[in-house]
Amino acid sequence: MSAKLGIIAGGGDLPRAVAAGARADGREVFVIGLTGSLDEGDDWIGDFPHEVMSPGAPGRAFKSFRREGVTDILLAGKVDRPDFSSLKLDMKGVLLLPRALKAARQGDDALLRFLVAMFEEEGFRAIGVAEAAPGLVCGEGVLGRHTPDDAHRADMERGFAIVKALGALDVGQAAVVCEGLALAVEAAEGTDRMIERVATLRQALRGTPRQRRGVLVKALKPTQDAKTDMPVIGVATVERAAAAGLAGIGLEAGGALIVDKALVAAKADALGLFVAGVKL
Amino acid sequence: MSAKLGIIAGGGDLPRAVAAGARADGREVFVIGLTGSLDEGDDWIGDFPHEVMSPGAPGRAFKSFRREGVTDILLAGKVDRPDFSSLKLDMKGVLLLPRALKAARQGDDALLRFLVAMFEEEGFRAIGVAEAAPGLVCGEGVLGRHTPDDAHRADMERGFAIVKALGALDVGQAAVVCEGLALAVEAAEGTDRMIERVATLRQALRGTPRQRRGVLVKALKPTQDAKTDMPVIGVATVERAAAAGLAGIGLEAGGALIVDKALVAAKADALGLFVAGVKL
Repeated sequence: MSAKLGIIAGGGDLPRAVAAGARADGREVFVIGLTGSLDEGDDWIGDFPHEVMSPGAPGRAFKSFRREGVTDILLAGKVDRPDFSSLKLDMKGVLLLPRALKAARQGDDALLRFLVAMFEEEGFRAIGVAEAAPGLVCGEGVLGRHTPDDAHRADMERGFAIVKALGALDVGQAAVVCEGLALAVEAAEGTDRMIERVATLRQALRGTPRQRRGVLVKALKPTQDAKTDMPVIGVATVERAAAAGLAGIGLEAGGALIVDKALVAAKADALGLFVAGVKL
Repeated sequence: MSAKLGIIAGGGDLPRAVAAGARADGREVFVIGLTGSLDEGDDWIGDFPHEVMSPGAPGRAFKSFRREGVTDILLAGKVDRPDFSSLKLDMKGVLLLPRALKAARQGDDALLRFLVAMFEEEGFRAIGVAEAAPGLVCGEGVLGRHTPDDAHRADMERGFAIVKALGALDVGQAAVVCEGLALAVEAAEGTDRMIERVATLRQALRGTPRQRRGVLVKALKPTQDAKTDMPVIGVATVERAAAAGLAGIGLEAGGALIVDKALVAAKADALGLFVAGVKL
């Protein structure tokens, strides 16, 4: 039987999917929701034993996990970089803040790596989504019934090259390419805002829901630790890509997560987009 | 005396500044304004001998330049990628279209290189802004009275690394970095839209006009031919950066242009931003 899993949950659909996937896999789960990152009004956390606390209270998190008999831990979901000047800190938080600030200055991945290291130093074992809920990992091949053509494959190739180059500098993990032209590249705004702005570009450069052109790609950053943070899409991503006139979504097989695969496939089929996992 | 200069003018302030700079440098100038790219209602072109024509009419452009005795030519300003399917073509345009389409598929720089090659094959000599109007080139050092501190210099260094990596893939030539975090990276939306979206990020990540943080950087793409297309800033760029709460602007010395240096320095001084040229 697998060890009890502690999930430190940020925003988005991923923490719910991981918790449900791990439970389906036969694991007991305990969730710590982070204030400021956990989606407000989102009550999936109520389905699991849980506590909600400030990201500045690591001492409380260690204590709760130990009390619950948690041995494996996992960070999932969007964790917003906190405003360190107004963060509520417990004693451990005060002690760890200088290292957190130093890591934060090096980028988001460095900050996440620090958070994982912090739990590992306390004796917990950090595992990744691929281990906790392997059904979420994107495989190779096409999901659903639409398939990319040669031009889409060329755009995916260019998109992956862009994301890998940017990722090596810990910038973003997504881009949109249309017939060779990089329409949008992700930085701090996140994938959703990036997709949305494609629709604001001149129409000659992009597709429309009637005439789909261009692809969204997401891939693991070379600096990114698959244990802590993998690119993720879900039904809402497909809907946004469709609204922006894109023809499809290309994901790094083994390097990206799909929340609710069956629903994603059904939505992509209904809207006329492909979703392809590509081995890089 | 310098040879007569033919300027193929796109949008923005650069073509005007180049035409005025070249004339001040003692050159005769003839301007061809490109429909679809030239700013509408902008009548600077009326101050120079000129014609306005479609980017699909290269035959007409060659003829006009020859009639005017133009030997050196220069492309300046934003040239929007045309909608090739609705482009009005002259005979030369029809003949050259397949090569233009092929170049366009490889990115904007490839398209510009093709346009320059097209004029060179007709016997014209393509020159760069640095030769036609050397006063526009950004030098090393600070313009105005505000200076970057060590944190700003670190952000500029990170920004230049991002722009050079992206530029090698012909993506963009600008980025915004704030305390190590890449807030925005430029693709097809252009520098103006990129700066504007910084102000839409969560306030913890960015500065404000009251507490300026973060820097805009612009640098020459490694794929970019300094003859055809250099990054450029002007007074409006300083105003946009100021509105987005940025602390300053870092430019590649020798690899970027400043339109109206004295006005840019005065505006940056008034708004509290630095403008720094950095030798890369």
